[in-house]
Amino acid sequence: MRIGVLGTGIVGRTLGAKLVELGHDVKMGSRQAGNEHACEWVAAAGERASEGSFSDAAAFGELVLNATSGAASVSALTSAGDAHLDGKVLIDVSNPIDAQSGFPPALTVCNTDSVAEQIQRAFPRARVVKTLNTVTAAVMVNPALLGGDHVIFVSGDDAAAKRQTTEILESFGWPDRDIVDLGDISTARGAEAYLLFWIRLYGAVGSPFFNIAVVRQPAARS
Amino acid sequence: MRIGVLGTGIVGRTLGAKLVELGHDVKMGSRQAGNEHACEWVAAAGERASEGSFSDAAAFGELVLNATSGAASVSALTSAGDAHLDGKVLIDVSNPIDAQSGFPPALTVCNTDSVAEQIQRAFPRARVVKTLNTVTAAVMVNPALLGGDHVIFVSGDDAAAKRQTTEILESFGWPDRDIVDLGDISTARGAEAYLLFWIRLYGAVGSPFFNIAVVRQPAARS
Repeated sequence: MRIGVLGTGIVGRTLGAKLVELGHDVKMGSRQAGNEHACEWVAAAGERASEGSFSDAAAFGELVLNATSGAASVSALTSAGDAHLDGKVLIDVSNPIDAQSGFPPALTVCNTDSVAEQIQRAFPRARVVKTLNTVTAAVMVNPALLGGDHVIFVSGDDAAAKRQTTEILESFGWPDRDIVDLGDISTARGAEAYLLFWIRLYGAVGSPFFNIAVVRQPAARS
Repeated sequence: MRIGVLGTGIVGRTLGAKLVELGHDVKMGSRQAGNEHACEWVAAAGERASEGSFSDAAAFGELVLNATSGAASVSALTSAGDAHLDGKVLIDVSNPIDAQSGFPPALTVCNTDSVAEQIQRAFPRARVVKTLNTVTAAVMVNPALLGGDHVIFVSGDDAAAKRQTTEILESFGWPDRDIVDLGDISTARGAEAYLLFWIRLYGAVGSPFFNIAVVRQPAARS
């Protein structure tokens, strides 16, 4: 598949490299073609990797992955162009971290809204799926890094888009039983607010290499 | 120990009953002495149970437990009286659910503040510990209801108060290894924002009888 990855940070580079490794053709997009991080990533990731502007990457992708900063995502996707998102699955892995808020960070949107909903409202013909924002980049593409079962979430209004996203998660190594469908795109409020909890748990664990499992009543187990 | 439990909802009644069962003397407090739920609770909970106003309950307790609605907690504790909280451990289990927001609920405070911090600021001589707000009432007092290890969190500025709270959690059946100290009282922002995630996970699980476990790197396990 041809995939456009928007964002040149550690999340975009990690996801892009994994997608190339899995045999996809990946174009990394940034504000301007020729971004230093993007060019370094292309040099390392191999011949299926390329880079360009947000618009170049979105136009290239049959599927588009938003790995820009959540606070800047609607702006980045506006640069990418509505027409280049039309009808496509748009996987949003961003977190709306307020860069002005220091550490621990606050969110720029929270509680009654989410970046994923902002994106879906701004690009109503894109098929937005929120996922992967609840774990650090290395765990996103290698869940076996952690011991035992742990879960990842999908949120979105389009069932087929969630199925396609689930297939990509499975190709990353997430077992189907550990992929939890939270529901429609508004459930991304929960997955994004989770960051406020994650950052405190990160402090207690002393490492970003952790995730959560869901523990249920024994009788309720499937 | 003499414990004042503020709040007559399912959380206050469940925690109060467990504390009586464990041999504590518990006075349940509400806006006005003679509250119907409180009187029913006293009748069922046994001779170590009593009820009264918020002020009566706080004055009675060597330790005070806030199980009022998070949106009304500072008001309830103001009725209880600053002098009756002075120097005491104040365990806050509330969630700031906005009753006006419908379902799924929003929070009345979130992101850059928390009820626990509001309480600590309003009653600087109380020793506030946030805990238990991340699970449903039945799980609070009976963690063995769920299969396998799962975690509970404490947040607070006073180390001795967190130790005393941890002892109470252990008496409820929480193993020491599953009690995670998130840090100072500001970490309650994470534990309270978690409700926005919990409510969505509740929707996916289809039952409130669940909790999370923390999964780490195998090498990092103690």
